[in-house]
Amino acid sequence: MLSKYLNILREKNPLVHNITNYVTVNDCANILLAIGASPIMADDIEEVEEITSICNGLNINIGTLNHRTIESMLAAGKKANELGHPVLLDPVGVGASKLRTETARLLLDEVQFSVIRGNVSELKGLFLDESGTRGVDASEVIDESNIKSIAKFAEECSKKSNSIILITGKTDIVSDGERTYLVENGVAEMARITGSGCMLSALITAFISADNSLESVVAGTCVMGIAGEKALETMKKNDAGNSSYRNYLIDEIYKMTGGELGAKSKIIFAG
Amino acid sequence: MLSKYLNILREKNPLVHNITNYVTVNDCANILLAIGASPIMADDIEEVEEITSICNGLNINIGTLNHRTIESMLAAGKKANELGHPVLLDPVGVGASKLRTETARLLLDEVQFSVIRGNVSELKGLFLDESGTRGVDASEVIDESNIKSIAKFAEECSKKSNSIILITGKTDIVSDGERTYLVENGVAEMARITGSGCMLSALITAFISADNSLESVVAGTCVMGIAGEKALETMKKNDAGNSSYRNYLIDEIYKMTGGELGAKSKIIFAG
Amino acid sequence: MLSKYLNILREKNPLVHNITNYVTVNDCANILLAIGASPIMADDIEEVEEITSICNGLNINIGTLNHRTIESMLAAGKKANELGHPVLLDPVGVGASKLRTETARLLLDEVQFSVIRGNVSELKGLFLDESGTRGVDASEVIDESNIKSIAKFAEECSKKSNSIILITGKTDIVSDGERTYLVENGVAEMARITGSGCMLSALITAFISADNSLESVVAGTCVMGIAGEKALETMKKNDAGNSSYRNYLIDEIYKMTGGELGAKSKIIFAG
Repeated sequence: MLSKYLNILREKNPLVHNITNYVTVNDCANILLAIGASPIMADDIEEVEEITSICNGLNINIGTLNHRTIESMLAAGKKANELGHPVLLDPVGVGASKLRTETARLLLDEVQFSVIRGNVSELKGLFLDESGTRGVDASEVIDESNIKSIAKFAEECSKKSNSIILITGKTDIVSDGERTYLVENGVAEMARITGSGCMLSALITAFISADNSLESVVAGTCVMGIAGEKALETMKKNDAGNSSYRNYLIDEIYKMTGGELGAKSKIIFAG
Repeated sequence: MLSKYLNILREKNPLVHNITNYVTVNDCANILLAIGASPIMADDIEEVEEITSICNGLNINIGTLNHRTIESMLAAGKKANELGHPVLLDPVGVGASKLRTETARLLLDEVQFSVIRGNVSELKGLFLDESGTRGVDASEVIDESNIKSIAKFAEECSKKSNSIILITGKTDIVSDGERTYLVENGVAEMARITGSGCMLSALITAFISADNSLESVVAGTCVMGIAGEKALETMKKNDAGNSSYRNYLIDEIYKMTGGELGAKSKIIFAG
Repeated sequence: MLSKYLNILREKNPLVHNITNYVTVNDCANILLAIGASPIMADDIEEVEEITSICNGLNINIGTLNHRTIESMLAAGKKANELGHPVLLDPVGVGASKLRTETARLLLDEVQFSVIRGNVSELKGLFLDESGTRGVDASEVIDESNIKSIAKFAEECSKKSNSIILITGKTDIVSDGERTYLVENGVAEMARITGSGCMLSALITAFISADNSLESVVAGTCVMGIAGEKALETMKKNDAGNSSYRNYLIDEIYKMTGGELGAKSKIIFAG
């Protein structure tokens, strides 16, 4: 039962440390509060180790990285590892610049991540010597023709990194190298707002901060997808657009119940 | 009559300089516009003194502080003091890291603040040698059992700092060391969005930029609480969640009338 | 037909590189997605040239400039020029500090801009030796008494800079030095939210990234004004305030059709 992981999160009310970009940081904070976690954003090298020590998990997002924050990401990541706190990496835009690719790879070398979440272009930029990222959007689409090969790729990335891999797209793929799940929740509308990826990463960090398991990552992925589906209904009903859609999406996270999660999740065990 | 202070603010349309965090900065700008003030955000050391000189008040918020902006906070604060402009300090997360605690105390030593606003954990972190802040949320709750002792603490902080102290929680406490008011407006929902504290600090800076008095701070605190109450009604009516709640809250600040403020404010004079 | 430029934009789905302020960056990203473009925000000196190379246009906004980003603005601007990509300058708050005025003028010297967009105070601060900016708001109002002289000023600025000049106010003025259009769309409510100027600059960058012409700038200016008008109706209908208004404004950009743009645009050719 996926609802178990939502319940655990809400009971534990984990404190999540975020070193993230300044574009979607407000939405990340609000989605963490919506799900029942508490956010703290801190990125100065002099305080990140202390801050991460009082938290239950760490979310590292390289969306608007710069030299000041790269150093902080490394320090916080190592400290979280030392303390056994789960750490998530969102390698935003890897492949779009050397700085992003090299930083993400450096983080991967120096920090043990519980979860790495990105679109397929970002994951290929990180693990293969391919580039071709079109900015922060996925340039490669996941569909029926390539889902098997991308699921296989997720497994390989997981084995290489010893992390749970979450590749998001039309279908989301979650793999721990041994077991792989496909999540069919979500709608295309989610790509018409900024930050749906960043928000998912923050949300997943909350889930693993409460229970660090493959199932917990699957639960968080379903929560986001279901919220996206329900928000689309509200958007259509209100004849609204993408900015209101962002609010409705976070609202649905806030209102999500265990029953709803159980009833609406669409998961396929892919081996 | 509290409505007087709202009227003064709207007549004067004060320009408020904010050196604040990148998490809630957009909401702070919009709440300032909502109440009838004008925001300007500027944090580079080369311009903060000039910018604060053309403004009517200064809001210093250490939410995502870093070395670059600490220097700017000090320079702007001193310049504002020199010009007799009111300055507010929001010591976000004091107690959570040495950097925050030391920076807030340094600011307190170097700058004369008109108002210091925080939750009880932050104020204890700032004025006592206690720490125990749980990130940016208050770890200590204000309720009937401790309201008297916290009100007493607010008075002492006010005397020490020669600032008006605004401690926010279930009940808000406003003290200038001689007179102390309790404000019973507001709802728990306000803690489910990021930035309700930051927004209140920005709002109070607008009030003191128009009229630098204890009553003006009380008026601003009531305005925020009443807006929170009304926004909760809209949220329930629309079956919405916390992201929409944030919008409704700012909307209610925008729509607030003097009559409403007079009718709905719940203030207790505590001596 | 202005709708042509909206169609071109939506067909091309341009990728727009933004070096912008942290106050309104989220709204800029969402308005770019709303109109059918893709945003990427990146400001580190080590990656801006690479990032701008994979994009179709560059939006430089000096809203919360600092020394780290000034260097990046120059490098990205020069690279975009080298590649023939359109570049827009939004000289936020020029006149309010030496740093802003000098930075904007340095950018003007070093980078060839396709479009410069600001309010009349900012443009005077940039091109004349006047200052008098009241923060980031226009201190000088455009009305019937001065519209001719400001249109003339726009033409002169255009000739000096070899850029299309877009001066926004009650009436918006668009000039390429030879031809000048007045756009009468838009409502005063747009000044009660933060970022309406920044969002317009981002939007115009999308338009010129798809088709770099005076008509395309006029089309984008009309789109914004019409969205502002329609959003005001929604705000009144819902008894909302400025924060919801911001969402409705972006929503209207998202929903804008070519037919609506053709029917509702109010343009005067001024010679």
